Amino acid sequence: MIRLLFTLCFTLFFCSLFAQSDDSVLIRKIADEVLVNGTAYSNLHNLTKKVGGRLTGSPQMYKAEEWGQNALKDAGADKVYLQECNVPRWVRGGKDEAKLIVGDKQESLAVLALGNSVGTDAKGITAQVILINTFDELEQRKDEIKGKIVFYNYKFSPKFIETFLGYVDAVRYRGAGASRASKYGAVAVLVRSITNSTDNFPHTGAMRYDNINPKIPALAVGLWDADKIANAIGKNNDVKIFIKTNAHTLPDTVGHNVIGEFTGTEFPDQYITVGGHLDSWDPAEGAHDDGTGVVHSIEVLRALKAIGYKPKHTIRVVLFADEENRGDGGLKYASEAKAKNEKHIFGLESDAGGFTPRSFSFVIAKDKAEIIRSKWIPLLQPYGVYEFSVGYGGADVEPLNSTFGIPIAELNPDSQRYFDYHHSPNDVFENVNKRELELGAINMAALIYLVDKYGFN
Amino acid sequence: MIRLLFTLCFTLFFCSLFAQSDDSVLIRKIADEVLVNGTAYSNLHNLTKKVGGRLTGSPQMYKAEEWGQNALKDAGADKVYLQECNVPRWVRGGKDEAKLIVGDKQESLAVLALGNSVGTDAKGITAQVILINTFDELEQRKDEIKGKIVFYNYKFSPKFIETFLGYVDAVRYRGAGASRASKYGAVAVLVRSITNSTDNFPHTGAMRYDNINPKIPALAVGLWDADKIANAIGKNNDVKIFIKTNAHTLPDTVGHNVIGEFTGTEFPDQYITVGGHLDSWDPAEGAHDDGTGVVHSIEVLRALKAIGYKPKHTIRVVLFADEENRGDGGLKYASEAKAKNEKHIFGLESDAGGFTPRSFSFVIAKDKAEIIRSKWIPLLQPYGVYEFSVGYGGADVEPLNSTFGIPIAELNPDSQRYFDYHHSPNDVFENVNKRELELGAINMAALIYLVDKYGFN
Repeated sequence: MIRLLFTLCFTLFFCSLFAQSDDSVLIRKIADEVLVNGTAYSNLHNLTKKVGGRLTGSPQMYKAEEWGQNALKDAGADKVYLQECNVPRWVRGGKDEAKLIVGDKQESLAVLALGNSVGTDAKGITAQVILINTFDELEQRKDEIKGKIVFYNYKFSPKFIETFLGYVDAVRYRGAGASRASKYGAVAVLVRSITNSTDNFPHTGAMRYDNINPKIPALAVGLWDADKIANAIGKNNDVKIFIKTNAHTLPDTVGHNVIGEFTGTEFPDQYITVGGHLDSWDPAEGAHDDGTGVVHSIEVLRALKAIGYKPKHTIRVVLFADEENRGDGGLKYASEAKAKNEKHIFGLESDAGGFTPRSFSFVIAKDKAEIIRSKWIPLLQPYGVYEFSVGYGGADVEPLNSTFGIPIAELNPDSQRYFDYHHSPNDVFENVNKRELELGAINMAALIYLVDKYGFN
Repeated sequence: MIRLLFTLCFTLFFCSLFAQSDDSVLIRKIADEVLVNGTAYSNLHNLTKKVGGRLTGSPQMYKAEEWGQNALKDAGADKVYLQECNVPRWVRGGKDEAKLIVGDKQESLAVLALGNSVGTDAKGITAQVILINTFDELEQRKDEIKGKIVFYNYKFSPKFIETFLGYVDAVRYRGAGASRASKYGAVAVLVRSITNSTDNFPHTGAMRYDNINPKIPALAVGLWDADKIANAIGKNNDVKIFIKTNAHTLPDTVGHNVIGEFTGTEFPDQYITVGGHLDSWDPAEGAHDDGTGVVHSIEVLRALKAIGYKPKHTIRVVLFADEENRGDGGLKYASEAKAKNEKHIFGLESDAGGFTPRSFSFVIAKDKAEIIRSKWIPLLQPYGVYEFSVGYGGADVEPLNSTFGIPIAELNPDSQRYFDYHHSPNDVFENVNKRELELGAINMAALIYLVDKYGFN
């Protein structure tokens, strides 16, 4: 690529040149501030490398709360505090193990116990494995399940352009597969990782037991090893698997939403919330899930303050205590807000990775959506957000919507790489690109500015 | 204007969701074919890992020509052949070396000789270094240059959202810096790498000597080491640099455009060209530049053939012999076409990386652009291309436009990561994402289908 590309982004630059409104000027200021002086990337480096993975209730999570308070102070928050929040305490308890056993041959499998799962005893479990592609097949073959390890091999469909739809399609096997297999006497389940990656990293994530059937161990297995198991079963009658995990659940404990405020000049008691969740799964550093959402949110405050913006309403950055496991952070934040009779305007979340933004998804009334489409999206388009959708607004701010009926939104970055990293050992800082991350913060700060200035009326 | 453009885009987007036209059905077929059975990623793996970096005239380049012919045959091309093409033959000749010398202390610097540059003699060059930020500063300090190594420290601006604009802004120091410094007696130049990366990889690329001033060695230096040199100069009066390179230029040699055809059913003598350049710089594998464009183009043919599409016109995939160094591949292709009095319809190129697509840029008459905006972009939007620009169409197909006056276009993927890898040792297969790559091929195949079916009338 050696030739000039002056007109490459003709539409974008054409738009930005012709729209020298106050709004476009201010949003350009935000962008320059983030791109030149941004701290999102260095904040993410500190969070991922100095704190690491952050299961609710873990020592790392308390370290992350300390980190979050300091980062918010450094960003210029007028007020930083903790909001106590009951959180679950699931513990992996060491390295998960699994082996594929065919005759005399044993091969290690790349596995991770699923969040909330129970462990085996110290000896582990060895049992014949049965490959089940779908829940329909499980029902058809229910008489063959007893005493076996069920291996769910449901595949992440490559056909969804928006990868989150592939996730939604496949995640039920991770969430409900254990109890459904336990009902028919399975002794454990292995679940093909919910990913469209090209590697063998296992991908963990939350599962739930029903209250009816025995709790059995449940693990995710990497894609190459899932194919290896399927291949072995296709060729042999007697394929066994050995698993051993020390996963267990301790009593609930105390965690905290970490909150930083940028006080409003006109309506200091009216709140605009922007946040991401501070907790993460433990196999890696929780970089894209959701370190990037955390540092996006802190950067919104920092950048608006740095350019001298004076918000009318109080902007609250919330680093939520628990999204992954039970969603306690967002629930607690909304219930406290209701108990204190606070007035809330809007809730924005980033929890879909630190990739180049493409859109925002909103939960909002149709007539208000018109404002966003006709006036706001064109202001964001030079920075990558060119559309919005209606229907979903993010797990941590959803309770704000259900409690107060206010609009909520979530940043939607490009989703192609998200499930390569999601809940796996390679969700690390090195897989986050500085500029892609910064573009997310720019669009979020711009949206917060527009909501603060105009509301939705 | 913004609102108008946006509203149009938005309306069309929703139309496309509900428009189960023949076109949207066929494009969905293309997408499914590429996402489920695609070979772009495995082709790229073979090209990058089994062939590697591909300087024009190098042994690897001839190996790449072999690879390209086989890949086109495997994709189902009806006819595969080579088109002879004169190409330059610049040779690095071994490992480039540089050291920063402050007093007794010497530190190695991460450098790469620039393409087309001359080398030093076997002893290398040691000279005092002078930091020059801009060409204006060079002119102001022209009396201080003699006998020194000029270190151009012009920075890639982070403010351009579209990173190619940052490249265009900074690349003149790489291209023309040596002769401009040589004019005032410099003995060599070091150029801050033209990148917005967060690492220290040096980024090479083409430079040109004028025919007036002595040819002096020219090298790119990684960003961390550029800062290190600047820092040393800020603190010390006497900072020297040692450089040694064996770069040299051999006589021009014979290369080839590799061509594969999918024969048209109605107008077999009318051509639609789609291509990328097979040559690359040598420090790595030429993955994003331009292995991805090469495999995109092959996948266009494969996918259209695989779904049973019968093109009206002949679709020609061209893997161009030389883009990086002197642009000989595209020039030769157009001049041969003219000599043979061929009829050409359209030329499409991919040479901006294998990232998620966002737009196409066209060189096209205004009245024809209307078709693209109103009818075609809405069909592509579900696959990531939501806009198009007018003004540029790609270096390798540009000669088709200047020769025949026909429309040309280039795929514009998201640009945020491109210059992290461009011309550097980390332009490797591992930095290409399978799905992002595939989305490029889908949009290109869809555009080729639309041009074949409807033309621009």
